[in-house]
Amino acid sequence: MRTTLEEVIKRLRTAQRVLVIGHIKPDGDDISSVVSLVLILRKLGTTAEGCIADPIPWFYQSLHGVSVIKTVEELKDYQYDTSVTVDASELSRIGDAVKLLHGNPPDIAIDHHKTNTGFGRLDFCDPKYAATAMIIYEIGKQLIVYDPNLAESTLLGIATDTGFFKYANTDYKVFLYAAELLQAGADIQHIASAVLEHRTLNEIRLLTEMFNALKISEDGKLAWSFISTEMLIRNGCTEEETDGLVGEIRAIHGVEIAILFIEWPKHHVHISFRSKSYADVSGLALKFGGGGHSRAAGCSCKNVDPESLIEKVISEAAKIL
Amino acid sequence: MRTTLEEVIKRLRTAQRVLVIGHIKPDGDDISSVVSLVLILRKLGTTAEGCIADPIPWFYQSLHGVSVIKTVEELKDYQYDTSVTVDASELSRIGDAVKLLHGNPPDIAIDHHKTNTGFGRLDFCDPKYAATAMIIYEIGKQLIVYDPNLAESTLLGIATDTGFFKYANTDYKVFLYAAELLQAGADIQHIASAVLEHRTLNEIRLLTEMFNALKISEDGKLAWSFISTEMLIRNGCTEEETDGLVGEIRAIHGVEIAILFIEWPKHHVHISFRSKSYADVSGLALKFGGGGHSRAAGCSCKNVDPESLIEKVISEAAKIL
Repeated sequence: MRTTLEEVIKRLRTAQRVLVIGHIKPDGDDISSVVSLVLILRKLGTTAEGCIADPIPWFYQSLHGVSVIKTVEELKDYQYDTSVTVDASELSRIGDAVKLLHGNPPDIAIDHHKTNTGFGRLDFCDPKYAATAMIIYEIGKQLIVYDPNLAESTLLGIATDTGFFKYANTDYKVFLYAAELLQAGADIQHIASAVLEHRTLNEIRLLTEMFNALKISEDGKLAWSFISTEMLIRNGCTEEETDGLVGEIRAIHGVEIAILFIEWPKHHVHISFRSKSYADVSGLALKFGGGGHSRAAGCSCKNVDPESLIEKVISEAAKIL
Repeated sequence: MRTTLEEVIKRLRTAQRVLVIGHIKPDGDDISSVVSLVLILRKLGTTAEGCIADPIPWFYQSLHGVSVIKTVEELKDYQYDTSVTVDASELSRIGDAVKLLHGNPPDIAIDHHKTNTGFGRLDFCDPKYAATAMIIYEIGKQLIVYDPNLAESTLLGIATDTGFFKYANTDYKVFLYAAELLQAGADIQHIASAVLEHRTLNEIRLLTEMFNALKISEDGKLAWSFISTEMLIRNGCTEEETDGLVGEIRAIHGVEIAILFIEWPKHHVHISFRSKSYADVSGLALKFGGGGHSRAAGCSCKNVDPESLIEKVISEAAKIL
């Protein structure tokens, strides 16, 4: 049932033991939302635990509060009266943590994705928020006073989901909340350094190879590259380490659409689409079985020949330019 | 004479014809400060012109207001009653525009550099401001109402001088003013795309070569690379296009000090120093005749053998780690 933030806050005030669950393939906003809500509830005197089914990428570990997050296994005997999912657009996004719900829907689902399916007993989803962390912040401000650690955890989600204050979703509220969180003691340089400055030498070698394989259309508006299974193995990189590489292609002057094809494992190709100022790439991703936003979208194609897939995708992309 | 912001505002209110001058090798804050002050004064009904002696890097041209800036030649017959320098720490920083002052000091000098020498008749310099654009904004707010173009011009300086809200100088005021400027109609995505996403294919080739030449200390804390005159020529790049490359080295996981040596022209080596979280590289730059901040500093060494210079610098850098 769709509800208001006030109802969510009221429900959380009466909770005694809470389980907070984030989504798989955790990103900054996911981690931030789980950690922040757990810390808010604990400050309120409520017993609270946070769970994400997938491992947390290593570079987030130096940030305050991240160690709060537990695995499904660690929480399998945890007794709670209120379950909350955060930043998950559908129930399947919480992965194995669904076991902890014992077949029930979550009592509260808090999210900001346009595609949210409304699977909670109480649902609060508003895509106007640039990050779920901002919703959690509005809840937290009503309940407790922010300390530096909680402020850092919250700012992490706001920063990462706005591409560190650069994406189109960066509105005045994003900056205003960032200002408030800095006053509460958050350190944006610390967050930026942890999240953005962790490139490994293997990743640099992969980046170099990606640039060597770069193709660009005659008018310079469409640029793409292909990272093969062999390239990943040769450079000792996992698929996760290709994160952000498509942005390096979009950063080329004159490029409107950037596309990165990643083959992992053999004959499975993940495609990331990015656009710079006007092209809507979500339809492009949809055409190949994926989805996303107008400036950032993606899809996964199984059992394909990379070469002919690339040819097909590039010809479709050229059509929308 | 050091003065208050109130005095500066009072003086600007009574001015009839103003000349605003920025510094050579213009960066975002410089351009922002010149354009914003000119636009503020014009809104006030004052005649105002803006001058920067060096050419404006091409990628700023798509931003509102940048076309306001004129060359020294274009303004050589311009009559004014009030001259203002912005973002210049000493008079020599305005380059050839000094001719327009006819041997006089500027009537007003507005700056935020710690090293400001106090060369204006009225001087306002406060290093607590992350950007000179923020000082201009505080002046403007007292005088006029912000429109979207002026808001964009102002936000440009705040964004660039804080490394797009990531450097240690990013305080709550930075975010608060950014919030206000977005409410006034500025578009941060537009600014970010113009300033950050303009890499040329030549620059990518240079980046790749820089990575190929990368050296890293055994403990991984010190990383450096060398861009030779030959590499610049081979890739059709100018020295200006090496801007930001040292940040790519600092972004490597575990690296505390990143150093980039650029030889241009032959036997002249410019050195950029960056540190990630604790090392103070300003002393290092000072030792080789330069200066700067603790996290970002630089120096230029003339008539040197790059190889032996690199050896010396690296051995000094290792000492402070």
